[in-house]
Amino acid sequence: MVVLNEKTAKKLNVFVDDRVAITNSKKVYAVVDIFPRLVKDKEIGLSHELGQILKLRNGASVEVSSSELSDASFLIKKKMNGESLDQKELEYLVSEIVHNNLTEAEIAFFTAAEKLNGMSDKETINLTKAMAKTGAKLKFREKYVADKHSIGGIAGNRTTPIVVAICAAAGLTLPKTSSRAITSASGTADVIETISNVELSLEEIKGVVKKTGACLAWGGSLGLAPSDDKIIQVERLLNLDIEPQLIASILSKKIAAGSKFVLIDIPYGESAKVATLSKAKKLGKKFERIGSKFKLKIKIVYTDGSQPIGNGFGPVLEMLDVLSVLQRSLGFPVDLRTKSIFLSAELMKLCGIKDARNKAREILDSGKACEKFQEIINAQNKNKNFDKIIQKLPLAKINKVIKAGKTGKITNIDNKKINSLCRILGTPETISSGVYLHKHIGKVKRGEPIMTLYTKSKSKLDDALQFIKKSKPINIQ
Amino acid sequence: MVVLNEKTAKKLNVFVDDRVAITNSKKVYAVVDIFPRLVKDKEIGLSHELGQILKLRNGASVEVSSSELSDASFLIKKKMNGESLDQKELEYLVSEIVHNNLTEAEIAFFTAAEKLNGMSDKETINLTKAMAKTGAKLKFREKYVADKHSIGGIAGNRTTPIVVAICAAAGLTLPKTSSRAITSASGTADVIETISNVELSLEEIKGVVKKTGACLAWGGSLGLAPSDDKIIQVERLLNLDIEPQLIASILSKKIAAGSKFVLIDIPYGESAKVATLSKAKKLGKKFERIGSKFKLKIKIVYTDGSQPIGNGFGPVLEMLDVLSVLQRSLGFPVDLRTKSIFLSAELMKLCGIKDARNKAREILDSGKACEKFQEIINAQNKNKNFDKIIQKLPLAKINKVIKAGKTGKITNIDNKKINSLCRILGTPETISSGVYLHKHIGKVKRGEPIMTLYTKSKSKLDDALQFIKKSKPINIQ
Repeated sequence: MVVLNEKTAKKLNVFVDDRVAITNSKKVYAVVDIFPRLVKDKEIGLSHELGQILKLRNGASVEVSSSELSDASFLIKKKMNGESLDQKELEYLVSEIVHNNLTEAEIAFFTAAEKLNGMSDKETINLTKAMAKTGAKLKFREKYVADKHSIGGIAGNRTTPIVVAICAAAGLTLPKTSSRAITSASGTADVIETISNVELSLEEIKGVVKKTGACLAWGGSLGLAPSDDKIIQVERLLNLDIEPQLIASILSKKIAAGSKFVLIDIPYGESAKVATLSKAKKLGKKFERIGSKFKLKIKIVYTDGSQPIGNGFGPVLEMLDVLSVLQRSLGFPVDLRTKSIFLSAELMKLCGIKDARNKAREILDSGKACEKFQEIINAQNKNKNFDKIIQKLPLAKINKVIKAGKTGKITNIDNKKINSLCRILGTPETISSGVYLHKHIGKVKRGEPIMTLYTKSKSKLDDALQFIKKSKPINIQ
Repeated sequence: MVVLNEKTAKKLNVFVDDRVAITNSKKVYAVVDIFPRLVKDKEIGLSHELGQILKLRNGASVEVSSSELSDASFLIKKKMNGESLDQKELEYLVSEIVHNNLTEAEIAFFTAAEKLNGMSDKETINLTKAMAKTGAKLKFREKYVADKHSIGGIAGNRTTPIVVAICAAAGLTLPKTSSRAITSASGTADVIETISNVELSLEEIKGVVKKTGACLAWGGSLGLAPSDDKIIQVERLLNLDIEPQLIASILSKKIAAGSKFVLIDIPYGESAKVATLSKAKKLGKKFERIGSKFKLKIKIVYTDGSQPIGNGFGPVLEMLDVLSVLQRSLGFPVDLRTKSIFLSAELMKLCGIKDARNKAREILDSGKACEKFQEIINAQNKNKNFDKIIQKLPLAKINKVIKAGKTGKITNIDNKKINSLCRILGTPETISSGVYLHKHIGKVKRGEPIMTLYTKSKSKLDDALQFIKKSKPINIQ
């Protein structure tokens, strides 16, 4: 970023976010910002970093020109025009993204071109390589460094804390990092944060993993494959799903985090990210083809994404689901338990553990998974009182039970609409808000509770009731 | 734009350029900026405009949520997903662009989708309507309000001042607004600015047109079809040509400026915007189809764009070309004169003038066009001394003659490379810099001057010589 005043910018015919070339010992490109009084006419304000790159002191003269597109712009234009980018080109582009040398609009053009012109396997491999290469890295000496990833889109579906606990108790090493919610009711990081510190440094992650075999950290500020964070920030403007970017994003993060065994869950269903099993398999095959070029053992599972998984949606409500599965409390969500055991067993199998299904179930039922979970949280929390924290988990004061309007069958519960409903109620900002689902797909009688809404704000409750009326997230026939 | 501090932004899980919904008497969307100390925790800074829309006073409480995509984002996503947008949707989108409610990245997604998914005629018509509808408008009582527009891409090609002078002298009304250079050596506004004020207000334009029958103003700050200016600012990041946007941009500006008769020049050639005559005709037909839905009489001409037109490239050098054609000086560029007469005659014919070719030539040869040009410039300049100004037109001190390396034939002069060469030499910022072409396509002898480079900076001259070596803008065989 460089700063000009308005007169100079006009003279150079540049606007905010345009690029200028600055020439001294070498030529660099920088993005322009315009401020009225920070610099005088014909002056340019450079960052300390840029001054060092150009070996310039205060008051030195430089040539500034708005004449050419940067190399990165040429590459994006090339991709927009339907051509392929090679390894060097993608490396350059990713490094320019990491060094903040591209505007968000340029990143938008790049991702739009990726989506609409597609990326070949070779391009996706090179993109993944480039993304994994830039940024911080974790390394572990253990043999079975493993990770589990769902491509998302299903409301609830908070299997990660349970799978991590089971697999760590089975002896695997899981340096698990998760994101916060982008468009869902909450992300795994939001859910864990209801009871634990999740903003760990790389050093802290190493410490927690060394001590407990796993962690449940927020990945956002770690700088693992940092270009991903910047690209996601642009994609989220439209909540876009861009297949090659999805693959590169997931795999590059796992590679940078030091994982060797990766289980990828692709849920399919009408309101999931992928609508049908055949589309899910097409995506899965691409994951396998790309993953095989890295030192990763990958297993893809295709799971039922026809309705939300678990009962609670929203940070606290999902944590309560997780705890009830781990603690085997009365009324635990059976679907969440079943899927968590399934995924744990698949990841254990991938790491060579035999009789994995029975072992996973045994670890959960014996309470070992719950112990391991507590151990991980305590390590992240520097041994604050676990029981006290979970007893104090708040639920929003305003609540409203929604009942079935008629007797019949719930034929459809829309994942996207349940997520939207939660966001209207205040998730993920208001951690105690969200939706509790009393019924899944199946029979229902008139007057039976279907869901309870939790929120802190009367007006949000009104909005939510309006939304239910208009959008019908749950369909009874 | 709203301002949050970092802690509040983190809590809301929003980043710079993300959107939040603010709810009070109604719900509006705003783009977030984050500053460390401007606002306190849990405070939000609103613009005066936004405060008025929401009817809020200082210190009032509002609900802020990051939960949903705005309606505009949904529409852009729809277009990204290959669906069409209807009239209402495009109107809404354009008005959101005009009101600064979209980020540049969102505009980038929209234009990328326009380019890669295409726009139907119906969509392009609705886009043009929406763009013409928002913003300022000019109206004239005269019957023959006319305009001439080249789609660009040819180096030099500064016909506009000559055509406007000829046609105004023939009795047409030409409220001509032009742009500054985006990627070329200079735009018409840059060229006129070497001798005249071009930053006229709408009132001043009306005054100059009333007095002289025409004007030669910069269109950038007039607010005619203002969404266009914002979209162009994003397109120029990659120097993209997006066909539906090009059509909507040109037609909406003409409609807003009150023109009824529009001549559109589509040059074609290997290094032009359009490579072949058949592609040019395809674009021309689309212009005609779209234009026929508005109260516009449109004529398309397809002209030779195989090489630059005129001898001088750069603001002052192009003005010298224009003046030498108007003043019939020795050594005037024949190609520029011929094309200007041709275009003038076509526009005059479109307005019903008979024997237009001979009349156009006569107006130019009799000096009437030159008088009219002087009249327009004097009106824009509030009667500063015209002769004094044009006598003082500067040429950059450093110059270098490039000679033919061998005897043979100049087979190719690349428009894009000549423009790049000019920008390396300092155009359009340094108005006195640029390229003077001694030869066009045809025979040349070893040692004959081909071009002269003008620049103010030794290092730019070195860069330019490097560029000539590497890129060969002129090819001798």
